[in-house]
Amino acid sequence: MALYFANSSEGMVPDALAGFARAHADLVVWEREHGFVRARHTSPARRVGLVSGGGSGHEPLHIGYVGAGMLDAACPGRIFASPHNRQIFEASRAVGREGGVLHLVKNYTGDRINFGIAAERLGRQGIPCARVLIDDDVASESDGVAAGRRGTGATVLVEKVLGAAADTGMGLRDLVALGEDLVERCRSLAVASAPHTAPTTGRPAFALSNGALEYGVGIHGERAEHTAAHRPLRDLVGEMTGTLARALRLGRGSSVIALANGLGGVTQLELYAVLGEAARLLDDRGVALERALVGDFVTALDMHGFSLSLLEVDGETLKWYDAPAQAPAWRR
Amino acid sequence: MALYFANSSEGMVPDALAGFARAHADLVVWEREHGFVRARHTSPARRVGLVSGGGSGHEPLHIGYVGAGMLDAACPGRIFASPHNRQIFEASRAVGREGGVLHLVKNYTGDRINFGIAAERLGRQGIPCARVLIDDDVASESDGVAAGRRGTGATVLVEKVLGAAADTGMGLRDLVALGEDLVERCRSLAVASAPHTAPTTGRPAFALSNGALEYGVGIHGERAEHTAAHRPLRDLVGEMTGTLARALRLGRGSSVIALANGLGGVTQLELYAVLGEAARLLDDRGVALERALVGDFVTALDMHGFSLSLLEVDGETLKWYDAPAQAPAWRR
Repeated sequence: MALYFANSSEGMVPDALAGFARAHADLVVWEREHGFVRARHTSPARRVGLVSGGGSGHEPLHIGYVGAGMLDAACPGRIFASPHNRQIFEASRAVGREGGVLHLVKNYTGDRINFGIAAERLGRQGIPCARVLIDDDVASESDGVAAGRRGTGATVLVEKVLGAAADTGMGLRDLVALGEDLVERCRSLAVASAPHTAPTTGRPAFALSNGALEYGVGIHGERAEHTAAHRPLRDLVGEMTGTLARALRLGRGSSVIALANGLGGVTQLELYAVLGEAARLLDDRGVALERALVGDFVTALDMHGFSLSLLEVDGETLKWYDAPAQAPAWRR
Repeated sequence: MALYFANSSEGMVPDALAGFARAHADLVVWEREHGFVRARHTSPARRVGLVSGGGSGHEPLHIGYVGAGMLDAACPGRIFASPHNRQIFEASRAVGREGGVLHLVKNYTGDRINFGIAAERLGRQGIPCARVLIDDDVASESDGVAAGRRGTGATVLVEKVLGAAADTGMGLRDLVALGEDLVERCRSLAVASAPHTAPTTGRPAFALSNGALEYGVGIHGERAEHTAAHRPLRDLVGEMTGTLARALRLGRGSSVIALANGLGGVTQLELYAVLGEAARLLDDRGVALERALVGDFVTALDMHGFSLSLLEVDGETLKWYDAPAQAPAWRR
């Protein structure tokens, strides 16, 4: 646990955005006045603008996925706080096209409210606007609260696939249907063995004894229902993979993309081992691992933990997943 | 600080390599018996095979840079330990071409010895072999010991540029000259505010009080000459950038590539802020920032720290830097 490298805790996000804009000036533009990042290059065939956003502290999500073949714009909020609806409204007006604008929203109350207000304002201006709500985290499924499942790792996959689909000229209604289908076919689960550092205090955001695991942690440090014991990776990933496979009813003949995602403080050695264990278990079940993503895609500041996501795919989804994109955190 | 997610500390590297090979089966092959990763696709124009390697725990270095346009092979050692000379010998035999093989070696005693023994064996088999020694870390410059400067962030840039140059059909002697020139034009400096976790004990690898900075830390946790106080990022990066600019004699009209590299436990928010501060200081000095790399490229397990590297470039170097490559950690 250590202090962040920063000028001040309030300066972390604006200073990072300035550096981000400078580092990736060939791919993105940071519209500082209106608070959104937009793609410098986009496909002329695209008829619907794709806009996402959410609290900062999850980088590269969402700003790293702005660019040709992915998002048209992303609105970063303060750390772990929703962007303001004005940011979303301005971004949507700037990148909306003849077919309107699609909002890709992680399922958190603040994000839902702010994207909702922006959508109402866009509607009053006659700009067609629809939403795909991303809620893939199985750990929050049994909460019994109205909020529903949290949105986590699926977001990256949805942003990639919908970006490629939008580039074919697909309309708003079909994009919504595709997006909702993707969300329904994707589930995630996260564990942490140490909390993230709170930016304002420089101290651990929650208490977790050494050797304990938060099994089902959220990307803002939402506590799990119960704390579990640290255990060999094979057993841990086995349990996680089994839970995801059951949730998606995967079986012999199913095909998936797997995402072994670092929450900020874990090493690539650990993440590749996670992928290896998951792959072995999918093999045992006769599930085809079509593609694997390993690295930091949706983080929780410097939390020492990882998430595992599985997306069930067909040939068309794979084709869109494989389509070239040029975004700061996704270049193929 | 927390236990690693692993089956065992000894299993961390082999388990990660198995997952790495599975995740990137389209790009690389893990030759388990001989202990090296080789590229699945390479340019037919290449006449010299490029081989690197070193201790594990620095991922994505080196295995992530194996692929078309970059390395032909990489030999991973155990964590923070040189690969065995047999691994290097076998990798070199496997990927050497009519023009021979070039070893890209970070300046550490173990690596020098093992690459050296492999080179002797290759020579006895009539395989032309030469070496570029990478020693960019200014913090180790004044050690007054025979070991010389350590090799760190420059390695990524050298592997990228030499990969593109090799793809033009450049011969061994010219590649060595280009590589030595690149190393001479690149300098790095690293700081940490918390140590990495030792895999065998699960405890901090060295003691550093809260609020203290190890200014000039090495990528294996080599201590700096002295501990400094934590300070605002602007001041810290200002001092680092000034030191690198003086070492490279940068001034008005110079052009550079900057690498803001995470050592494992820092966030992208922090790294982008580092890049932003460095860019501002280069602007002040009239130095053109031609390209920026921000992220985890050469890590030190989960160390909470970052390094800054500057490489002075000309138009030809930029062209090679920009050339497409398809490696797990470098796809453009």
